[in-house]
Amino acid sequence: MRRERGLKRIGIADTTFARFDMAAAAADELKKQGGGFTIVRYTVPGIKDLPAACTILFDEQRCDIVLALGMVGRQPVDKDCALIADTGLQLVQVHAGKHILGVMVHEDEAKDEAELAFLFDRRTREHAVNCYDLLFRPEALRKRAGTGQREGFADAGPVRVK
Amino acid sequence: MRRERGLKRIGIADTTFARFDMAAAAADELKKQGGGFTIVRYTVPGIKDLPAACTILFDEQRCDIVLALGMVGRQPVDKDCALIADTGLQLVQVHAGKHILGVMVHEDEAKDEAELAFLFDRRTREHAVNCYDLLFRPEALRKRAGTGQREGFADAGPVRVK
Amino acid sequence: MRRERGLKRIGIADTTFARFDMAAAAADELKKQGGGFTIVRYTVPGIKDLPAACTILFDEQRCDIVLALGMVGRQPVDKDCALIADTGLQLVQVHAGKHILGVMVHEDEAKDEAELAFLFDRRTREHAVNCYDLLFRPEALRKRAGTGQREGFADAGPVRVK
Amino acid sequence: MRRERGLKRIGIADTTFARFDMAAAAADELKKQGGGFTIVRYTVPGIKDLPAACTILFDEQRCDIVLALGMVGRQPVDKDCALIADTGLQLVQVHAGKHILGVMVHEDEAKDEAELAFLFDRRTREHAVNCYDLLFRPEALRKRAGTGQREGFADAGPVRVK
Amino acid sequence: MRRERGLKRIGIADTTFARFDMAAAAADELKKQGGGFTIVRYTVPGIKDLPAACTILFDEQRCDIVLALGMVGRQPVDKDCALIADTGLQLVQVHAGKHILGVMVHEDEAKDEAELAFLFDRRTREHAVNCYDLLFRPEALRKRAGTGQREGFADAGPVRVK
Repeated sequence: MRRERGLKRIGIADTTFARFDMAAAAADELKKQGGGFTIVRYTVPGIKDLPAACTILFDEQRCDIVLALGMVGRQPVDKDCALIADTGLQLVQVHAGKHILGVMVHEDEAKDEAELAFLFDRRTREHAVNCYDLLFRPEALRKRAGTGQREGFADAGPVRVK
Repeated sequence: MRRERGLKRIGIADTTFARFDMAAAAADELKKQGGGFTIVRYTVPGIKDLPAACTILFDEQRCDIVLALGMVGRQPVDKDCALIADTGLQLVQVHAGKHILGVMVHEDEAKDEAELAFLFDRRTREHAVNCYDLLFRPEALRKRAGTGQREGFADAGPVRVK
Repeated sequence: MRRERGLKRIGIADTTFARFDMAAAAADELKKQGGGFTIVRYTVPGIKDLPAACTILFDEQRCDIVLALGMVGRQPVDKDCALIADTGLQLVQVHAGKHILGVMVHEDEAKDEAELAFLFDRRTREHAVNCYDLLFRPEALRKRAGTGQREGFADAGPVRVK
Repeated sequence: MRRERGLKRIGIADTTFARFDMAAAAADELKKQGGGFTIVRYTVPGIKDLPAACTILFDEQRCDIVLALGMVGRQPVDKDCALIADTGLQLVQVHAGKHILGVMVHEDEAKDEAELAFLFDRRTREHAVNCYDLLFRPEALRKRAGTGQREGFADAGPVRVK
Repeated sequence: MRRERGLKRIGIADTTFARFDMAAAAADELKKQGGGFTIVRYTVPGIKDLPAACTILFDEQRCDIVLALGMVGRQPVDKDCALIADTGLQLVQVHAGKHILGVMVHEDEAKDEAELAFLFDRRTREHAVNCYDLLFRPEALRKRAGTGQREGFADAGPVRVK
């Protein structure tokens, strides 16, 4: 594996379970943000396989950060899967000392298929911006601190006090 | 233990608790996919014993990947067992830096015994294909990324947007 | 500590909280299965103390496997204790690379005290057999793979397909 | 830090959140049990801070065992805190290979303030005895194995079979 | 990175998701408590990103303690996020052997926006005092042990026994 000088390595892990090509949206948005990085793709069956993929992206592929992209289905068992996947992602982050931005879209968050597609695209892109900021523009995140940002639907905004 | 040159080692861990010979289905399907691997079998009592089995398959048996096959019963305590087993499987994967494909069939997913047998067989086989792909055909998984694949019952397919 | 040549070391960890002498049943049944092992006993207050006991049995007492014996009470807080204990047992197993067979009897599984005593005894003994098999007769476990074994009450048996 | 020759070190970690001076009761009861130890005190804000305190008591203060004393409030969020704290205490015990006796009093276990005070005192003292036994009198714990001991309210006793 | 002689390093990790500038309140209150420290700021998107931030603050920024500041939304999925974040914070603390004071404000704890702002400010400041005490005034915490302290709303006080 060749490591291009000075380029950061961004892992993008996604699943065959998800019903939208989240990785394409993430890669497209990352490139819009600027340069300085290469992308390493990794596709697994479902969200419970994402933590192992992230471990491999950090340890073998020497990624500096990973976007872990997945969908959570409508069944109770799917909600349990999300908890397990998230627990695994925490283990990996603490082990690697690096960030994984978990981008999960719950199938029941959207009222219809059109809104679901919108949500997949928008949330993934907003987290791609967060990913770029964590690597290259930490001051941009700090400027948004405590301002009620949301990824996907509308921002909540800061507490409104007269 | 002899390691045949160039062959990948696939662990298959299963349980005496399950009501179907999932390991036989997994081994049969793996062989249909092609060569290049040997199988290491390991049977434990129940799904909570699978994580230790996987640890041993990775550390002592030097497996490259493991299929962890199990059944989840109908009682609330069985659902708790599944969460614990899955938590353990995450720990092992992060520890080993390798994939475990957890194949769990919930006894209450099927409407009768015939469908349950079908589901055991089908889900196990589809994950055996995923296992083979993770080792030998990552591009096949990537091609299915974001397309709503399901193991066992019918695929969900990608989001339908006009 | 003297280690007798060639003998496996089986840890038996139990609690003062349980309402039955599970350790005695386990030791008795193990001895019925055959020889080749010594037993190391360890008693703790409750099931949340079992993981630390198992760690000590593996690390200081060099056990090869542990039977962790406990009772889960009727209150919601007892169910939480069981989840915590089981999580700890997973951590220990992955850390040690060895099996802990967790034998938990829920007080509300039995309809009266007599059945409860029966269940304590039977489940403990059946897991003692599993323990012996994991150490000395792995082929016996493999033969039972996928056959719907249950410890305590009647076996479920394999899926019935005409 | 001076380590007195041959003395065991017992850590007592408590919180400002609890509504009773559990540490005083623990220290008093420990001293009643006999000698051979010194006590290291550590106070943190709440129960979620106990695992880090225990880590420090083991790693920096070289304690041999820790009594982690806390109260769980009446709100659902308090119950979640207890699960998190208990999860952390498991991590620490497995990491250190030493026991932490978690003594948690749930505010809603008692029918009034007087009973709550009684429960705080009694449960703490009974676990202080357990602590002393784990260090100095393991045979005393073993003698109580399977006898339905409870800390705080009345013992359940062994299963009653005619 | 220059490390000023003798100064402790306090990490402040916050999120863009929160609806209040908790980090400003924390830094202001810390400075009111006295000197002897420098502050290292780190902003992430949401509370599930706090554990990785804390790992980096400990490992790369050599912080002695971290205040992890976040808000928990009103949805069930937000409650799950809090559990995951808290689990991660436990992992980091045990790994680092240092304290993270998690300051979480649940959006549904307050009856209106004004009270929510009050709660954000007050809880953050009270935990900033706890943070200072853990580093510089452990005897102050010990004095408050078992006295029913609460951060944000009114203290519960010790058990009232006549």
